Amino acid sequence: MSVITIERKILEKNDEIARQNRARLTEHGVLALNMVSSPGSGKTSLIERTLEHLNGKLRVAVIEGDVHTSLDAERIARYRVPVVQIVTHGGCHLDAHLVAEAMTKLDLTRLDVLIIENVGNLVCPANYDLGEAMKVVIISTTEGEDKPLKYPAMFRQAAVLVINKVDLLPYLDVRLRVLKQNALCINPSLTVFETSCTTGMGITRWCDWLLMTVARGVKTRGE
Amino acid sequence: MSVITIERKILEKNDEIARQNRARLTEHGVLALNMVSSPGSGKTSLIERTLEHLNGKLRVAVIEGDVHTSLDAERIARYRVPVVQIVTHGGCHLDAHLVAEAMTKLDLTRLDVLIIENVGNLVCPANYDLGEAMKVVIISTTEGEDKPLKYPAMFRQAAVLVINKVDLLPYLDVRLRVLKQNALCINPSLTVFETSCTTGMGITRWCDWLLMTVARGVKTRGE
Repeated sequence: MSVITIERKILEKNDEIARQNRARLTEHGVLALNMVSSPGSGKTSLIERTLEHLNGKLRVAVIEGDVHTSLDAERIARYRVPVVQIVTHGGCHLDAHLVAEAMTKLDLTRLDVLIIENVGNLVCPANYDLGEAMKVVIISTTEGEDKPLKYPAMFRQAAVLVINKVDLLPYLDVRLRVLKQNALCINPSLTVFETSCTTGMGITRWCDWLLMTVARGVKTRGE
Repeated sequence: MSVITIERKILEKNDEIARQNRARLTEHGVLALNMVSSPGSGKTSLIERTLEHLNGKLRVAVIEGDVHTSLDAERIARYRVPVVQIVTHGGCHLDAHLVAEAMTKLDLTRLDVLIIENVGNLVCPANYDLGEAMKVVIISTTEGEDKPLKYPAMFRQAAVLVINKVDLLPYLDVRLRVLKQNALCINPSLTVFETSCTTGMGITRWCDWLLMTVARGVKTRGE
């Protein structure tokens, strides 16, 4: 029982710091996206394609969360945007405190969008609010149709679903329609994008949505 | 600090039950495999192909671990082997206690192999010994070359690596050689298999190894 109490206390403390992060982001009009997915679904590639496509139209910074290595931060740094690497050293998710620390390294007055790439894990990051405006869950077609049903918490928490690697569909026994249906069955209010970071398919639509969301000033969850 | 202490106590308790599980499995000469991977790497498909290929040559039972749903257990049950479903209801890993409970539903005297399919998560299950003889980590080629470097704990803990979905390599910007090198750099003693559950490639080699391992009586880790 004590474990449950302490777990709850950790989450309460996390939520308190998340509220502070959200207040700071709102104050500076920064749209923060918490990108969550399994390992290898293409989060980093999607960020790379997004930065390429936006090509300076928005001022973007990236916080990279990884269990080990700074490989992803190095990939993103090539796009000449501010990048902060958080290495969790075995930790299975980012938390609001780690993000608060990372945010101190960024000049929020010069940002439109803060992309937070979470640790590749479709389970644990669902429980941790980082102060983001919304969670964006990425799933690759190769992961199979049933994943939204098997890992519902993440799909329930997210505002946006990006179905990535659609270029591989011809080679898979996966029906895009069913994958989408399963996700919408868990969360009917999901905004869904279909992308391929290899061919570039869907990147324009996703970036247009991002530009529109920033323009509309939909900056924080629950406002 | 109290959190760390309690976490340690949980792991100590887990390891104690894992030792009991291992002792029971050894007593009955059952080879237990703890199958770990990201969601959607093909764990269930690999188990299906294994059961098909073995075609009764070994007496196998399966424990299915899922966050939600019993979809995988239903898939495995078609192969007319004993299946026990564990639903963790949000829990991000199996633990030794859950497996001990599941084992009470199985007649160990009539088994050669117990396959435990863990929750799809490349981080947390690395910390939990279930009493298995060995961890088998599955990675699909679509997850990218860098995953062993980014999630080293799991690759360090495993005795066997199965690289699945090799049929998709022609459509990916992933070099099998580099993926394998990265894994062996983390853990040089890994036994590596390359498989495609779609084409059946590599399944014979994997099953031959399984038959040989059972025949040799390499039944528990550290014996």
